[in-house]
Amino acid sequence: MKMSALFAPTLKETPQEAEVVSHSLMLRAGLIRQLSSGIYSFLPLGLRVLNKIIEIVREEMNRAGGQELLLPALHPGELWKETGRWDIYGPELIRFKDRRNRDFCLGPTHEEVITDLVRREVRSYKQLPLMLYQIQTKFRDEIRPRFGVMRSREFLMKDLYSFDVDYEGLKKSYEKMYHAYCRVFERCGLDFIAVEAESGVIGGDVSHEFLILADSGEEKVVVCPSCGLGSTEEREKCARCGTPLEEKRGIEVGHIFQLGTKYSEPMKAYFVDRDGKEKPIIMGCYGIGIGRTMAAAIEAHHDEQGIKWPYSIAPYQVIVIPVNASNEEQMQEAQRIYEELLNQGFEVLLDDRDVSAGVKFNEADLLGFPVQVIVGTKFLKTGKIEVKFRMTGDREELSAQEIVNLVHRAKSGLR
Amino acid sequence: MKMSALFAPTLKETPQEAEVVSHSLMLRAGLIRQLSSGIYSFLPLGLRVLNKIIEIVREEMNRAGGQELLLPALHPGELWKETGRWDIYGPELIRFKDRRNRDFCLGPTHEEVITDLVRREVRSYKQLPLMLYQIQTKFRDEIRPRFGVMRSREFLMKDLYSFDVDYEGLKKSYEKMYHAYCRVFERCGLDFIAVEAESGVIGGDVSHEFLILADSGEEKVVVCPSCGLGSTEEREKCARCGTPLEEKRGIEVGHIFQLGTKYSEPMKAYFVDRDGKEKPIIMGCYGIGIGRTMAAAIEAHHDEQGIKWPYSIAPYQVIVIPVNASNEEQMQEAQRIYEELLNQGFEVLLDDRDVSAGVKFNEADLLGFPVQVIVGTKFLKTGKIEVKFRMTGDREELSAQEIVNLVHRAKSGLR
Repeated sequence: MKMSALFAPTLKETPQEAEVVSHSLMLRAGLIRQLSSGIYSFLPLGLRVLNKIIEIVREEMNRAGGQELLLPALHPGELWKETGRWDIYGPELIRFKDRRNRDFCLGPTHEEVITDLVRREVRSYKQLPLMLYQIQTKFRDEIRPRFGVMRSREFLMKDLYSFDVDYEGLKKSYEKMYHAYCRVFERCGLDFIAVEAESGVIGGDVSHEFLILADSGEEKVVVCPSCGLGSTEEREKCARCGTPLEEKRGIEVGHIFQLGTKYSEPMKAYFVDRDGKEKPIIMGCYGIGIGRTMAAAIEAHHDEQGIKWPYSIAPYQVIVIPVNASNEEQMQEAQRIYEELLNQGFEVLLDDRDVSAGVKFNEADLLGFPVQVIVGTKFLKTGKIEVKFRMTGDREELSAQEIVNLVHRAKSGLR
Repeated sequence: MKMSALFAPTLKETPQEAEVVSHSLMLRAGLIRQLSSGIYSFLPLGLRVLNKIIEIVREEMNRAGGQELLLPALHPGELWKETGRWDIYGPELIRFKDRRNRDFCLGPTHEEVITDLVRREVRSYKQLPLMLYQIQTKFRDEIRPRFGVMRSREFLMKDLYSFDVDYEGLKKSYEKMYHAYCRVFERCGLDFIAVEAESGVIGGDVSHEFLILADSGEEKVVVCPSCGLGSTEEREKCARCGTPLEEKRGIEVGHIFQLGTKYSEPMKAYFVDRDGKEKPIIMGCYGIGIGRTMAAAIEAHHDEQGIKWPYSIAPYQVIVIPVNASNEEQMQEAQRIYEELLNQGFEVLLDDRDVSAGVKFNEADLLGFPVQVIVGTKFLKTGKIEVKFRMTGDREELSAQEIVNLVHRAKSGLR
């Protein structure tokens, strides 16, 4: 893609409405734009990051045995009345009447809808266990939408639901998901911690929150530097190994719950077990905020100049910058490297705009592409091309032939 | 994937509510389930088909120069009041007030929202032309939802919007999209026709409908057998070449519009042109119904036994059927072929269920996988494996070594 054609409008100034750095940088880098309070459009670069995270989540859900489906956003009110959440949920639940005057709401979560599907289709223990998930838009009319996509009224979530014959099965499903979540955040290039948490409006017995560690995070956690155990209580020594705990800050990006029969009992989602008896299905639910993970990645990886994307979720992996676009020799060499990297399967931008070198460098740093390939005056004199790595700030000078190998090594984390 | 673990609940009987064959087959084959009138869940096999179509659409939109973004489903009422459509749209537009008593609606289409985005970000002719698109859920409270996902209240659509400096630019964008649409439907393995159409509630001057040809289609069209020109008027001879026209039936799956200034004028989406003058941006809009395309593919390709998926949009390309799952030799050979095909990058199901051969054959036909690999008694006697092609009904007997090559040839349409 050429920068001159890319729809990525940047802002020079820090937007006034932004209270946290990720919100500010997502606006400044042209990743999102606000349509209304707590409602955002994802522009091309922002959507590319979302899709990178979605693909990692999808692969890990599938690897753990999840099957993807797509449930509606429009929920009939009756289902929510069956579980009592129609009354409990309050004004955060967006409600309306359809043209036939029937109660509907916009799904803020999908326990009722998935339980309704499963109770209609699953009758025997032979059909269990089952893990079903979707990656889909949720709606919550937050009383105070803030922090950009971190707490918004319309947002993308991965929600998986597990269905087992007994609590032993639930524990196994829960463990699979726990490990799948660890893999997701590792693959996104993020430091995270899992802590025991309260279940809140979703309900159930056991639940864990997954937090991305970042100094600007809104939640305080204590972490054992020895065994890694985390907790939200202001405890001094590790409950497991006695080591003094360290205080960290984090951002919640995932939450997993052992629901038990909280939804299957009131909704009569029963199955016939091996012993011929009818029993309620034992459920779990497991969510990841996709947009939140994107924002948390920025909170964890940025500096004063802008975003520093981890390689695996960067919107483009490489930007090739001819310092002076009107210099034919620079431009030709930049174009050649750009095409070679494209041919090698990399996602590459060519900054072909006729703007000053300063603007190009500043925007490359703001947008946070992991590898910057700079074709400048040095190339004209010595044939050497400068490569800058955004995460570390390291620079190397290379011949054109060495660039492709270097980018390969950078991608696999070997540099 | 093994059939024993796949969540694809089938129905033996034709569901009473289904008025058209695609609706019936999508329910029977476990592709969709109804949540409420005109509101459907896509189960794993159904979602796989949707995603196949989405990927083809995405590739062709990108090839034509489109840039993908993601706009919100929640639209502030003010935007719709700016264009007057808040009053015009009627009860099909789902409206509600948020917790601060502000008017909102659920987007049935996104002209207002995209025009608002572009008028804020585009100021100069240098930023044009621009083609922006999304693949996203739309909401329309249809007075009479029917035909399954064909006319539903919540549905997936690709909508692209073009922005040009003048009408000549619009014509170029329109032509690009026209050809991109042809490629999309060709790649989906569907016979289609483009006809001039009325613009309706979207508005504008010129518009074309894209119809998938199927005997069960709800729209009548006349087609010139000589030059291919199609029309919805009951004309007898081709307007272009005079050949007597043939009558066909089709299903609308795409619609493209030259909007001109219908949205940019009332919303003041102006740019400064090369001559320094402020002018309204010239727009076009271009939609494809993703679920509709899936339903239309079934209308076009089915028989009494079930669906006959075109290769490019099949949920799985191959099903391997050991006729008798309790016969160890058959099962081992089926498993071996299954793994070999997986290793070759095919999407394969193994029907490892302990059910009768009749059930397996019937369901393989109902679900419509293009290639059925049957490991049965013949294999035990002669070492030969039967391969059935669902689209044509052709059968071949092959040695195990020849299977992979045959599937490769089938995929590339060379068989």
